[in-house]
Amino acid sequence: MKTTNPTVKKILTHYKEISLLGRIKSVLDWDLNVNLPPKAAPGRAEQSAYLAKRATDLWLDKDFRKNLEAANKLTNVTREEKAILRNLNIAGKYYFNIPQKLIIEKEHASSKAFMVWKEARQNNDFKAFLTPLKTLIEIDRKMAKYIGYKENPYDALLDLHEPELTAAYTKKMFDAVKPKLIELTKKMLNYTKDEGLEKKFLHTKSSYPLDKQKELSLMVMKLMGYDFEAGRLDVSPHPFTTSLDRYDVRITNAYHENDFRFSFTSTTHETGHALYEQGVNPDYNESPLAGGVSYGIHEALSRFWENMVGKNPKFLKHVAPEFQKAFPKLLGKITPDDFVKLFHVVKPSFIRIEADEVTYSLHIILRFEIENELINGKIKPEDAASVWKEKSYEYFGISPEKDSQGVLQDVHWAYGAFGYFPSYAMGNLYGAQFLHAMKKTVNFEADVSKGKLANVKG
Amino acid sequence: MKTTNPTVKKILTHYKEISLLGRIKSVLDWDLNVNLPPKAAPGRAEQSAYLAKRATDLWLDKDFRKNLEAANKLTNVTREEKAILRNLNIAGKYYFNIPQKLIIEKEHASSKAFMVWKEARQNNDFKAFLTPLKTLIEIDRKMAKYIGYKENPYDALLDLHEPELTAAYTKKMFDAVKPKLIELTKKMLNYTKDEGLEKKFLHTKSSYPLDKQKELSLMVMKLMGYDFEAGRLDVSPHPFTTSLDRYDVRITNAYHENDFRFSFTSTTHETGHALYEQGVNPDYNESPLAGGVSYGIHEALSRFWENMVGKNPKFLKHVAPEFQKAFPKLLGKITPDDFVKLFHVVKPSFIRIEADEVTYSLHIILRFEIENELINGKIKPEDAASVWKEKSYEYFGISPEKDSQGVLQDVHWAYGAFGYFPSYAMGNLYGAQFLHAMKKTVNFEADVSKGKLANVKG
Repeated sequence: MKTTNPTVKKILTHYKEISLLGRIKSVLDWDLNVNLPPKAAPGRAEQSAYLAKRATDLWLDKDFRKNLEAANKLTNVTREEKAILRNLNIAGKYYFNIPQKLIIEKEHASSKAFMVWKEARQNNDFKAFLTPLKTLIEIDRKMAKYIGYKENPYDALLDLHEPELTAAYTKKMFDAVKPKLIELTKKMLNYTKDEGLEKKFLHTKSSYPLDKQKELSLMVMKLMGYDFEAGRLDVSPHPFTTSLDRYDVRITNAYHENDFRFSFTSTTHETGHALYEQGVNPDYNESPLAGGVSYGIHEALSRFWENMVGKNPKFLKHVAPEFQKAFPKLLGKITPDDFVKLFHVVKPSFIRIEADEVTYSLHIILRFEIENELINGKIKPEDAASVWKEKSYEYFGISPEKDSQGVLQDVHWAYGAFGYFPSYAMGNLYGAQFLHAMKKTVNFEADVSKGKLANVKG
Repeated sequence: MKTTNPTVKKILTHYKEISLLGRIKSVLDWDLNVNLPPKAAPGRAEQSAYLAKRATDLWLDKDFRKNLEAANKLTNVTREEKAILRNLNIAGKYYFNIPQKLIIEKEHASSKAFMVWKEARQNNDFKAFLTPLKTLIEIDRKMAKYIGYKENPYDALLDLHEPELTAAYTKKMFDAVKPKLIELTKKMLNYTKDEGLEKKFLHTKSSYPLDKQKELSLMVMKLMGYDFEAGRLDVSPHPFTTSLDRYDVRITNAYHENDFRFSFTSTTHETGHALYEQGVNPDYNESPLAGGVSYGIHEALSRFWENMVGKNPKFLKHVAPEFQKAFPKLLGKITPDDFVKLFHVVKPSFIRIEADEVTYSLHIILRFEIENELINGKIKPEDAASVWKEKSYEYFGISPEKDSQGVLQDVHWAYGAFGYFPSYAMGNLYGAQFLHAMKKTVNFEADVSKGKLANVKG
């Protein structure tokens, strides 16, 4: 980052170390998700907490804060400097208001909770996860108090993920679409009748070898323009993207042996996140602008690539032959139309990240409603699993028997990331707007049908 | 670590942070070896250098040093406290004498050199590695000066790896065995005549699938008593072991498709290192006693498990059926004796880590002689490749055509680890002594023949 303003310069120099600590912590977090042996969890929690402590020390540095306050009063700042200050002020709400002790406590609690959640999900044992869940809710409730809010403590948490978003606004937005989505889900059920297709191509005995699925993931990443010299693809229970450095943006995938679709949509989704990070202006490296605008915009990129590009019928038809080559026994004779239809089966489902484009936002609404009430103390943590089941029945007409398919399915609460979920729905909405705007200058449908995605990425 | 001495207590509290930084850095280093995408090298170098800087800051803390000096004068210390002070004084030679700037410079240089070496080795391009090699030699020469030495700057570097070992002593020891080893190599060549066996079972067309080799590695690790809940097995170009935490001791392996032996001996070697780390008294965690006694003793454990146990004919016969099951086409009909013989073919070879037990120490002697003269300026870095070839011809009667099979084969110099190699030969000697002592209380041959290794490990 180049700046001529001496105060901003001081801020950026100081921030460089915060950024470095964040990137080192990302290496540890990535490894926690992909590699960590079970007995190492307490040690890793200690390591992460140490780095978090160092970072908060730097945030709380008196000169840094003084410089930031001085810079906020500047009137002759450039567009970039303005953005830097905005991002620092947003993050500052967290670091300046919450006692450092509590931040470290959350770091410890979430590292441990992640390992407990992983095992609880595997063993389908919600009770095992209850204690860390309670701890994290309690910590986030306290944090919300420190950050401050007008109406709802959940607003303070939402604001950390999508600045200025409130629970009331989210509710209004969701309430407008909820009944229509429920209605549409029911209608589509009678309309698509694609059960036959799934039974034909995805019956449980089918085996789509994982190594072949991985090859296809790599093929799709290549089409999307992912830079393999500046990242890698690995396996984790829950696919995710993380930036360990400007030139080290890694994605993970999970492979289902009986269903090749999941790893495909996860690939387009996570690579969407990765392209955003890999596309950051190298000048912004180590500056507060390196991470992008907000979680919502990040999810806009991933949901855009997943749904507008990846599940676009023309794109699916373009890649279909590669899937047929990889799985000749099972897909050798599938028609292009059936291949497309397989990716557009609308039906109630338990797992958010496997959900179709109609029911997806209902999954988000369900989580938003529960976490809002968990933070407000209107739902007790011990009731989260049963409330989940009830809401699931109400919205989808089905209710998961196993908590691993219900309240334990997502990693977010194990990280203490309350207020994250609405970003996905925001992402869907932003993504639609991006497409609308993009079509003015990019020959979108034609490019997608040829798998030529350079302009779309651009 | 429990201690009642208030000065030692202060030292240990301060050291805890040094230890934590070291473990975080180990995560980064492990990832560098196993995962790092090429463009991320400069970023990772910056991250590692930052942690090294923090650690040296802590070493150079005035109170810490004052406390250490005070503790050195104590007379009523326990055995453990004495060992703590000894280890700190050894490490202190490095931190207290070398300017911090130079330590950081080496951190930067070695991170970069590793990535250059990896590519240079792949492309068989010594010239590409010359600049980082020169830089690291220059840094280590400077470091030796700062540490201080009586006769030979190389002594200062040796001392860091094996306290009190000198080049003169090493030379005396090596000169005593060198002619005999060269002679024995020649004799064995005429004696074993096992070329036929290798051609029969390891001809290049043979394919030992990597996944099967990995399964066998896991089987051997299990027999050896490796704790899989506190570590993992991965792949890297050069097998290594690293402790990311008391409960996270990871090993890596490399698999050769045409030869199942390499991954077997690497497994026993690296698991030997790992058992040493996994066996550290948990009370010593985060203390200066956590890392063991010296590199030589570490290599004693690895070489002991590799050669005294792993390549023991009785142990080989015990595991042979598993190999036959895994590779029925190629090994289905091999006799137990031929299986054992395959692991004891003595012949001149280019690659140290693939060398047999007779020629192995000759490989070490070659490296010792070269690095001693590199540090003393008697061999120029640009001549290292050709000197390597000459010496190889002198000791083994063969000379590698490719530098990837010569001067570029080992990772150590890319880390700037001059003075490490003799530890392997020391390890061989220590290991033989361990076995001698162990046989007094452990029914060694009987246990090994049954694959019951608990007492040996104990």
